[in-house]
Amino acid sequence: MGAGKVTVAATQMPCSWDTDDNIARAEALVRSAAKEGANIVLLQELFATPYFCAEQKQEFFALAQPFDKHPMLAHFSSVARELGVVLPVSFFERANNAYFNALAIIDTDGTILGKYRKSHIPDGGGYEEKFYFNPGNTGFQVWDTEFGRIGAGICWDQWYPECARAMALQGADILLYPTAIGNEPANHSHDSSAHWQRAMQGHAASNMVVVAASNRIGTETSGVGSMTFYGSSFVTDETGAKVAEASRDEECIITASFDLEAIRLRRAAWGFFRDRRPDLYGTVMTLDAGAA
Amino acid sequence: MGAGKVTVAATQMPCSWDTDDNIARAEALVRSAAKEGANIVLLQELFATPYFCAEQKQEFFALAQPFDKHPMLAHFSSVARELGVVLPVSFFERANNAYFNALAIIDTDGTILGKYRKSHIPDGGGYEEKFYFNPGNTGFQVWDTEFGRIGAGICWDQWYPECARAMALQGADILLYPTAIGNEPANHSHDSSAHWQRAMQGHAASNMVVVAASNRIGTETSGVGSMTFYGSSFVTDETGAKVAEASRDEECIITASFDLEAIRLRRAAWGFFRDRRPDLYGTVMTLDAGAA
Repeated sequence: MGAGKVTVAATQMPCSWDTDDNIARAEALVRSAAKEGANIVLLQELFATPYFCAEQKQEFFALAQPFDKHPMLAHFSSVARELGVVLPVSFFERANNAYFNALAIIDTDGTILGKYRKSHIPDGGGYEEKFYFNPGNTGFQVWDTEFGRIGAGICWDQWYPECARAMALQGADILLYPTAIGNEPANHSHDSSAHWQRAMQGHAASNMVVVAASNRIGTETSGVGSMTFYGSSFVTDETGAKVAEASRDEECIITASFDLEAIRLRRAAWGFFRDRRPDLYGTVMTLDAGAA
Repeated sequence: MGAGKVTVAATQMPCSWDTDDNIARAEALVRSAAKEGANIVLLQELFATPYFCAEQKQEFFALAQPFDKHPMLAHFSSVARELGVVLPVSFFERANNAYFNALAIIDTDGTILGKYRKSHIPDGGGYEEKFYFNPGNTGFQVWDTEFGRIGAGICWDQWYPECARAMALQGADILLYPTAIGNEPANHSHDSSAHWQRAMQGHAASNMVVVAASNRIGTETSGVGSMTFYGSSFVTDETGAKVAEASRDEECIITASFDLEAIRLRRAAWGFFRDRRPDLYGTVMTLDAGAA
């Protein structure tokens, strides 16, 4: 492909307690995506296991491993090099007494460019992440890969305009969001999928960047009941229009192709980044700016 | 209606060089909206005239008038008091040698609570606003009205996540955006209406607030050619779903009703504002955060 041309894939799959099988199936999706011409392949959040954060269990801290010697990262580094794809890989990171929901960014030559640690940590029925994860301390980052400058947030980060904007201000052309979201054990009927998509479509529209989200599928049962993850992985163009979208329950790959250089020119000509007013944005740095 | 219950109306109409007629038709829309039960009525941007910013003309500065003695504001203050509606009114403001694209916020008793000056000023073919307007210096504000705490941005502001977030952080329950947007004299085929809606739907979704936008309709011809404004005024719920939407070309009123107290509880339980990380948002205060 020419300079700036890129094909992005998002994948989705169910996960069991057979970690080797989860990893093998994730690898198979990456291989299929590469075969379809994908240059960047997005796997979902914490795909090596079920979404263990559904409940609070001390033993699950044993799932965490250090960034530097994580066997799964070494494995996917080989896969990325073999296939020539950019491959962010979500993992549970142990760092001495701190634990993070982290993402390693692997470039097409297998180099692990760095890691991002999830900044915004949710807490609610079925999503007990504050029990497991320190709030990330890496800040929002971007990486220059073989196929463009990419930024990544992890799941709950995807609701935060500040996270998307910070990556766009660092020149990200594509924002990637690995995710695990579905219904809640106590509220099976609530469906946030459209709300979830609209928040990220908004980031794409306001920053004029490509956005891709990869979400888990399947029903997982734990001590607190069952949860069904709603898939609906999608890719948007720089206006926030969905150009590829997966179903709620099929293991699959979706792809979309972009000319990042053409998008960059359209972004500049629209002038959103020309007309910003940081002198007026101080309120964004507060938790409570009002009198009430 | 009970505490926290509110009906929001957005209106749209074409504008001519007959200012008295424009004002009379805007007033008629406000009266109809009040009759339909609206508590807050949103009129479009700069409805007293055609969108004069299509071209750069010295004589158009004569359209500006001071905030304190603007006859149109006095007039709509009476209308708001008579009908018991909250009424933001867009006007071209002269302040000594400075000129602003401004909005007066009128409460149900006719009190003018204050004014907001448009912060983000666009510049492009058919949208020559940097020729006319100083970038606003009021900052993003909210007002406690009889029907809830409202925030307002003006047109180009609607693309900026920082503006929406700053108002939500000040406790806004509803964000209002008077607008004038359509195609461009040099590019009649480009249609940004879906992009435009998605950016604001994203603000609603990420902040869990109600959003209403009121946009101009009609074709206006100036020295640079003709422009057709695309209407499509809309109101969203707190998930960003459009719950009311106008056509592209009809003069009309749309309304939607909300229970702001119920939305406030849902917003709190979702936890977006609990999990924010201002310690990581410094990048948002920059114009260029990257190495490239």
